[in-house]
Amino acid sequence: MAKKPFRVGMIGYGFMGRAHSNAYRKVGNFFDLEHEVVLQAVCARSEANAKAFADKWGYASVETDWRKLVERKDIDAIDICVPNNLHKEISIACAKAGKAVLCEKPLAMNVAEGEEMCEAIEKAGVPNMVWYNYRRVPAVTFIKQLIEEGRFGRIFHYRANFLQDWTISEDLPQGGTALWRLDAAAAGSGVTGDLLAHCIDTALWLNGSIADVNAMTETFIKERKHTLTGKVEKVGIDDACAFLCHFQNGSLGLFESTRYARGHKALYTLEINGERASAKWDLHDLHRLQWFDYKDEGKLRGWRSIHVSDHSGEQPYTDKWWVPGLQIGYEHSFVHQVADFLAGYAKGESVGPTFRDALETQRVCDAVLASAASKQWQKV
Amino acid sequence: MAKKPFRVGMIGYGFMGRAHSNAYRKVGNFFDLEHEVVLQAVCARSEANAKAFADKWGYASVETDWRKLVERKDIDAIDICVPNNLHKEISIACAKAGKAVLCEKPLAMNVAEGEEMCEAIEKAGVPNMVWYNYRRVPAVTFIKQLIEEGRFGRIFHYRANFLQDWTISEDLPQGGTALWRLDAAAAGSGVTGDLLAHCIDTALWLNGSIADVNAMTETFIKERKHTLTGKVEKVGIDDACAFLCHFQNGSLGLFESTRYARGHKALYTLEINGERASAKWDLHDLHRLQWFDYKDEGKLRGWRSIHVSDHSGEQPYTDKWWVPGLQIGYEHSFVHQVADFLAGYAKGESVGPTFRDALETQRVCDAVLASAASKQWQKV
Amino acid sequence: MAKKPFRVGMIGYGFMGRAHSNAYRKVGNFFDLEHEVVLQAVCARSEANAKAFADKWGYASVETDWRKLVERKDIDAIDICVPNNLHKEISIACAKAGKAVLCEKPLAMNVAEGEEMCEAIEKAGVPNMVWYNYRRVPAVTFIKQLIEEGRFGRIFHYRANFLQDWTISEDLPQGGTALWRLDAAAAGSGVTGDLLAHCIDTALWLNGSIADVNAMTETFIKERKHTLTGKVEKVGIDDACAFLCHFQNGSLGLFESTRYARGHKALYTLEINGERASAKWDLHDLHRLQWFDYKDEGKLRGWRSIHVSDHSGEQPYTDKWWVPGLQIGYEHSFVHQVADFLAGYAKGESVGPTFRDALETQRVCDAVLASAASKQWQKV
Amino acid sequence: MAKKPFRVGMIGYGFMGRAHSNAYRKVGNFFDLEHEVVLQAVCARSEANAKAFADKWGYASVETDWRKLVERKDIDAIDICVPNNLHKEISIACAKAGKAVLCEKPLAMNVAEGEEMCEAIEKAGVPNMVWYNYRRVPAVTFIKQLIEEGRFGRIFHYRANFLQDWTISEDLPQGGTALWRLDAAAAGSGVTGDLLAHCIDTALWLNGSIADVNAMTETFIKERKHTLTGKVEKVGIDDACAFLCHFQNGSLGLFESTRYARGHKALYTLEINGERASAKWDLHDLHRLQWFDYKDEGKLRGWRSIHVSDHSGEQPYTDKWWVPGLQIGYEHSFVHQVADFLAGYAKGESVGPTFRDALETQRVCDAVLASAASKQWQKV
Repeated sequence: MAKKPFRVGMIGYGFMGRAHSNAYRKVGNFFDLEHEVVLQAVCARSEANAKAFADKWGYASVETDWRKLVERKDIDAIDICVPNNLHKEISIACAKAGKAVLCEKPLAMNVAEGEEMCEAIEKAGVPNMVWYNYRRVPAVTFIKQLIEEGRFGRIFHYRANFLQDWTISEDLPQGGTALWRLDAAAAGSGVTGDLLAHCIDTALWLNGSIADVNAMTETFIKERKHTLTGKVEKVGIDDACAFLCHFQNGSLGLFESTRYARGHKALYTLEINGERASAKWDLHDLHRLQWFDYKDEGKLRGWRSIHVSDHSGEQPYTDKWWVPGLQIGYEHSFVHQVADFLAGYAKGESVGPTFRDALETQRVCDAVLASAASKQWQKV
Repeated sequence: MAKKPFRVGMIGYGFMGRAHSNAYRKVGNFFDLEHEVVLQAVCARSEANAKAFADKWGYASVETDWRKLVERKDIDAIDICVPNNLHKEISIACAKAGKAVLCEKPLAMNVAEGEEMCEAIEKAGVPNMVWYNYRRVPAVTFIKQLIEEGRFGRIFHYRANFLQDWTISEDLPQGGTALWRLDAAAAGSGVTGDLLAHCIDTALWLNGSIADVNAMTETFIKERKHTLTGKVEKVGIDDACAFLCHFQNGSLGLFESTRYARGHKALYTLEINGERASAKWDLHDLHRLQWFDYKDEGKLRGWRSIHVSDHSGEQPYTDKWWVPGLQIGYEHSFVHQVADFLAGYAKGESVGPTFRDALETQRVCDAVLASAASKQWQKV
Repeated sequence: MAKKPFRVGMIGYGFMGRAHSNAYRKVGNFFDLEHEVVLQAVCARSEANAKAFADKWGYASVETDWRKLVERKDIDAIDICVPNNLHKEISIACAKAGKAVLCEKPLAMNVAEGEEMCEAIEKAGVPNMVWYNYRRVPAVTFIKQLIEEGRFGRIFHYRANFLQDWTISEDLPQGGTALWRLDAAAAGSGVTGDLLAHCIDTALWLNGSIADVNAMTETFIKERKHTLTGKVEKVGIDDACAFLCHFQNGSLGLFESTRYARGHKALYTLEINGERASAKWDLHDLHRLQWFDYKDEGKLRGWRSIHVSDHSGEQPYTDKWWVPGLQIGYEHSFVHQVADFLAGYAKGESVGPTFRDALETQRVCDAVLASAASKQWQKV
Repeated sequence: MAKKPFRVGMIGYGFMGRAHSNAYRKVGNFFDLEHEVVLQAVCARSEANAKAFADKWGYASVETDWRKLVERKDIDAIDICVPNNLHKEISIACAKAGKAVLCEKPLAMNVAEGEEMCEAIEKAGVPNMVWYNYRRVPAVTFIKQLIEEGRFGRIFHYRANFLQDWTISEDLPQGGTALWRLDAAAAGSGVTGDLLAHCIDTALWLNGSIADVNAMTETFIKERKHTLTGKVEKVGIDDACAFLCHFQNGSLGLFESTRYARGHKALYTLEINGERASAKWDLHDLHRLQWFDYKDEGKLRGWRSIHVSDHSGEQPYTDKWWVPGLQIGYEHSFVHQVADFLAGYAKGESVGPTFRDALETQRVCDAVLASAASKQWQKV
């Protein structure tokens, strides 16, 4: 049976452009789907860059103006892989053009923008998704499944960290194509939107809503040369952010993120402690789930290191890949996200994290930043 | 050369009574000291209990009234191993009697008590120490040494956790000899004084003073049967406590403790992230130091798992024990503390953590509890 | 610049057919190469199976007779992904037809076959390679690089294990498409050719030639139902094999493989102990290298856990992928192998492991089996 | 109730003299026993050394001639902590004098000596034990218990390593008080008797008799200066030894030991793979048991890291010590051995490993050395 095309137009060609493109190219080899992804066009301001990317990844055409791309009739979906300050305008245009939208995270610069976007998207009724990809690392999805099976009992604690060390040097500039994440004008915030947003998305998904937060932020390097202006300018982003919170289910949360944790590259860790079981996971060894089950025989209780690569079909996604013991990596979370999105797309069902889900994460991020500024507990 | 006697009178005979007694008995076998510890007397309200303990550990005599013990002329030092609400009265009596005092942690029920104790102790000029033993786990002492060698550069982050899971059951009562730690009247606080106090002592020692704190506490099980009254009573202690803080050196701190982290028995972990190096340690594998050194050749950088059992004399304490690769355990931290105390005692020098040091920890604990109550940042 | 096509004809469509196809599809997205891989045809005895596979992976055409495929003019290279007993005939046909050959491991059923194959291949002068993919796991390639940099000094020990547990059940049959690895007629041997061959290939590459071996083998389950005949038949393969050996460089080797090590799925581990450094690696966490360097400062010596995901270009392959801390997986070793093969292909250079290299591994395998049979040390 | 004295005379005052003395001093504090150990006398050729040791450890008297010690009426048991070449003569003298004997391992220089010793000991009927202490590391004893509970099913594999790195330097001399382990005349063999003997003792205890062995040994540094003669002399010991074997129960064994494994200090590891479960343990983290249980729910199977510090009484020995999560160390294995010995002593029962048990280990060691010399499989 011939597959239906799912024609993607990609805006942006950076790190995430590569990660998404790879996912689009692989998904059909490993998942049975009604649709076949067609890499229809890539858009970048520089035609040369767009062409080079199109050549590398097999996009059929290029655009240099994202508005033109959005208006093209031969495109079913737009993938937004540009800095955060452009998300709103593009996604609203997509909604108006009736395109499905797959938007990089965080959703927006702030809640106000996010609400506007959700309104437009939902009014248009277009399929939409935000790339909080870590939900679909098999070990993380597995935790969700274990929660839904009722294995944890009452939850007492949730803690998550996202630790990096790449901005410690004072010589690193801010801004521009490569370093827009350090520029508040383009990124909105620092680690809060870039890293904690991931932790928050997963937490809301696994442990439900957050009621209130109490945060502190820090900017360790106060001034950096700006790539675009060439001048030393004040750094507007948060280098580090930590917060306490209460979840609606009564559990306590503790979150921390920084780019100044020497020795950690992308150490996203999470842990849930329930009455009957606990689980831990970290991104540096993403194929492993640490699991403690109180119903194990007393003298033999211990943390299990589960190599999430089973082939029985009982662990999420892993039966699509190789054989037990052979690990997958970072990029596969994107493949899973595309697979799930397309499965929902075929049925006309929305698949999380939607824009609406991502708005909830945005609300927590905004509350975190507001709490840090006011030095007060902040309701979400 | 004959050694001088150091005649100890022990008050209490519980878990800590055993840990200290073991340390007194072993220290002379492994360390060269001017003094020989003599287990002169143990005191308990029940003479039978005191005698059984004396038999087991080789104490020469027993007392049932701690005041009598403190007044005995044949005692050089009193070891206070009783619940927190008795620390003040006993230690002040010791000071007046001119005895050296070795007091279990936390120092007191609160800062007010602690100040009174410090005043009495310092006025009397008696040698004094508080049993914050984790400073003297070799891997922890090693971190102190590495800090003093200037290996970390500017410190950005300090984080510590103390996670347990032994009070999750609702059927566990509070109070009495075995469970006084769950009774606010005897313990003063819950995990804050019992567990976080350890984390704070180590942190102040390694990373300097804390400027302000912002805390949340929780009591998950609100009522428990009281062992002494037989009635179901309100639980007055904190089951969990987490706080954010700023250190005076500009680094950010994150602390958490709970007795509701299923799967963790006594998981005290700490991590320091500096500009040039990071270190991690945890009590469940206390003989290992995790070390990341940025000056390592780039492509070969990684966290080193150092088995702290060297015999070169360059790692603290380890050359006193067995041979490289053969680990020591929990109890050895107490032996080291006695060894250091006696080395100072012989020279008339005070050895930390003194009562004054422990008062600083008490100040942080009180600020943490005050912050949790007021929901505000609290200066220390 | 337009890339030159490298037109592949794949024979077989099983597990390895998928792994290779995935590599062919991805290599151009991540590596800059003169050639572009074209998936020209896939061959299977069943046309339906061939078509399904071609649809899934994008092969342009199908064949049901491998001889026809080999004769096609529009094919530059043949990939042999069929059971071991077919390797010889096909590869010799390829040589005669002037095709490049990429053959699954082990090379052949035995040394005699392997010599015939090498002769044909080398006479024809066609580019050739055998899929010992583990050489190109970045952490493993990294060890090779560290050896070449002279960091180990004299080598004393080399040990490798390949432990699995998937054949413990007596109910598992032997033979047929899915289980040909358990059928001596199709596989030649059991774990020796399937698993130890990988360990041996890596070892020869990293540590040089093996002089002699002393082996034991075992077949734990003596009879299994045969899928093709339906009858219970004697099991002809080795379920487990272990051997001692001397390398030509004077170091001692210890190798073991089994499919009866409960709890291990595909645990290929290797360790090298040199005078000045040691390295360890295991396939279950393939992105990590364990490294011990004696030139580290004494008190800080420890095993480093290196997350091999650097972006500096100093670690092999890793700069082609994501960012530091984001791991790759099993499949990437195949991508690297294709990338290296094509880089050599463009320059007319042969890239190991060639058929000749794989023949050396075959020699060790044969000596191992002969030693197990004779219960004697066997020269290689 | 007053305890009966168990008066020990110790011969030797080196590393093992300390380890045993520490055990004698501690055992009564942690175990309830009918006997109280009395450190009656220590014997060394140098009176000064003997006195210093007696002072340090509390021995009541000293001797300089072991024969005198053995004849003393006020001694119940002799502890033999001298080099291997003296074990036979002393232990036979003890037997004749009717003393209980606790002898360091390995039992003897060879099987012939060992048989003579067993005969004398058994004829005399004296309580006897050999210090294969690793059986009594709680995690190891726990494995024994799990085996006896039938949790493994049929055993397929047993593997053990003992890896060190302390003799790599060519400048290290051989012989004399400190380095007698490198002198074949004093030690009998190198790693085989020193390290593999431990692995073999544990293996025989856990997995039953060994039928035959096939070994290789190596001496990497052929000549070393001899401490006693001052001359460079041939090294007579084995620096490394590895062997394959068959256990009587049909499982395969793989053993290796070396002092040339850079990075490993005292890494004794063992692993057992059974039909239904597997277990792993290593001496560098001796308080942990790695456990894999096939009866765990499929999708949640993984290796459990069990912190063997339970307080329920269901894990061996651990309830005698501190609280869950607080680890014990190397020295505690000796305490356990004394505790078990004395419990048996009180009942007139013999406690393994007896001289007879240790003779079985000696038989395997001799067969290993004979196999290495003959390059043949050797029956035990």
